[in-house]
Amino acid sequence: MSVVVVGSVAYDGVETPHGRVERMLGGACTYIALAASYFAKTKIVAVVGDDFDPEDEKFLAARGIDLEGLERAQGKTFFWAGVYSPDMNDRTTLRTDLNVFADFNPKLPASYRGAPYLLLGNIQPALQKSVRAQMNGVRVVGGDTMNYWIKDYRDELLATIHEWDFLLINDSEARMLSGEYNLKRAASRIREMGPQTLVIKRGEYGAILFHRDSHFIVPGYLLEEVFDPTGAGDCFAGGFIGYLAERGFDLKKGHIDAKELSRAVIYGSVLGSFCCEKFGVDRFRTLTRAQIDARFEEFRAFTEF
Amino acid sequence: MSVVVVGSVAYDGVETPHGRVERMLGGACTYIALAASYFAKTKIVAVVGDDFDPEDEKFLAARGIDLEGLERAQGKTFFWAGVYSPDMNDRTTLRTDLNVFADFNPKLPASYRGAPYLLLGNIQPALQKSVRAQMNGVRVVGGDTMNYWIKDYRDELLATIHEWDFLLINDSEARMLSGEYNLKRAASRIREMGPQTLVIKRGEYGAILFHRDSHFIVPGYLLEEVFDPTGAGDCFAGGFIGYLAERGFDLKKGHIDAKELSRAVIYGSVLGSFCCEKFGVDRFRTLTRAQIDARFEEFRAFTEF
Repeated sequence: MSVVVVGSVAYDGVETPHGRVERMLGGACTYIALAASYFAKTKIVAVVGDDFDPEDEKFLAARGIDLEGLERAQGKTFFWAGVYSPDMNDRTTLRTDLNVFADFNPKLPASYRGAPYLLLGNIQPALQKSVRAQMNGVRVVGGDTMNYWIKDYRDELLATIHEWDFLLINDSEARMLSGEYNLKRAASRIREMGPQTLVIKRGEYGAILFHRDSHFIVPGYLLEEVFDPTGAGDCFAGGFIGYLAERGFDLKKGHIDAKELSRAVIYGSVLGSFCCEKFGVDRFRTLTRAQIDARFEEFRAFTEF
Repeated sequence: MSVVVVGSVAYDGVETPHGRVERMLGGACTYIALAASYFAKTKIVAVVGDDFDPEDEKFLAARGIDLEGLERAQGKTFFWAGVYSPDMNDRTTLRTDLNVFADFNPKLPASYRGAPYLLLGNIQPALQKSVRAQMNGVRVVGGDTMNYWIKDYRDELLATIHEWDFLLINDSEARMLSGEYNLKRAASRIREMGPQTLVIKRGEYGAILFHRDSHFIVPGYLLEEVFDPTGAGDCFAGGFIGYLAERGFDLKKGHIDAKELSRAVIYGSVLGSFCCEKFGVDRFRTLTRAQIDARFEEFRAFTEF
């Protein structure tokens, strides 16, 4: 079943202890869509400028991604540059040029509106809400947000996530949103805000899924070398929604076994881990579904006792 | 089968966001022995001063702990005081009075020397080595260390751990000891130093076990309330060695299934998590083996997919 993904398509400049790339394809929507494309037909809604490289477009199309909702505007594509700390647990933003993204007002093509799965990448909550409203009979809707919206657009954000089935955020955002340091209590508070399924991402330490009265915890995959963590959280989201869509699960009606939802978290973790193995989106130029499934089994092997 | 535990028996003053205790029973040896006592006959080697409270001695004896190796010296018992940060991930030492511990020179009673399991708590590496030398035909030996010994007593420490079957340390210590930031590479380096089994503790994020060519990762237990993390790492060690001793496993001869070693790590995690639920050793005043086994099954439930 198909997935609509909304968010940024961008160019990134990234420096990690392993090297530096001046300009490469990036953006939350790009990473989410690439990860989801291994599981389900994926349709993106985003805006790029007239500098968008036809090679990048070809790369996305080759992954089967539907680009009908990729708007071309006059001006330059969103550009972000950042540098990671030596341990890669922190990063400093060097530049954020919103460019055409500043006026992004997502409009869904008619062919997108009936899709059953919707993943709202990290953009202004009011825009996420407007996209949700353009969908007809969506089965599962969820997404991501960030500290900026939690802090300065709280009411707008609360009105938006109230309609979501799931929310994916990192631990510091969960603490900020809930006002609770303890993650178990933070999760209870957030689930009262609407999303009945909550995934708290913990970077290299993995993720926690809260669903109904139970939780599931997966540790992070132990990589020998982390080249570039950019996009790993978005790839997690893509793997998560991709698996739900592939299997046709419905979160609302209880048509999902808790273990299946845990498997979606594992696929999210698998895609996030692959993302870190090369700069930017490069790992997705060669990654296969067989490699994804093999790493899924590795997760089972190193967590079973 | 019986376990000999060497380390400090102390009084602690602890302040956490949940409260403050001026003086209570503590010390690595105490925590390790209490945790191990749920699985195997545990014999401690430590020194206390003439201020050691008979009630504390009774408490340890009531857990079946053999106190023949608990030396009484003239002077005061080791005292440590510290305060935890609001998130309890950091702590500041306010006071360290070594007192009688400064001259600790562990001598094993004859009745201890034939015990098959030896856990060397965090003390000077040369003393750990001397205890190892006093044992006859020990089956499994391992222990803990800390940044101070890694930094300033490196050669002594390397000569000591070279004889160990397992080493339990936290992530920052593993990085310091190996000179590698990446934990997978750090583990390879450390295993070249001697201990073929390595457990890297990650506090609230759980632990990683490295054994032969594979690894096992367990996330931390999600507590609703962490009252006092003091001693959690030591309780981990106690649960780990306790389970090995209960089952009679031998790490050297390959007489252990990798899954059984993983289960020892789970029992370590279970004991560490209980330790945090009350101040100091208080949780061990009521904890039962049935509660321990129930939490072991909880770990299975929240990690299986």
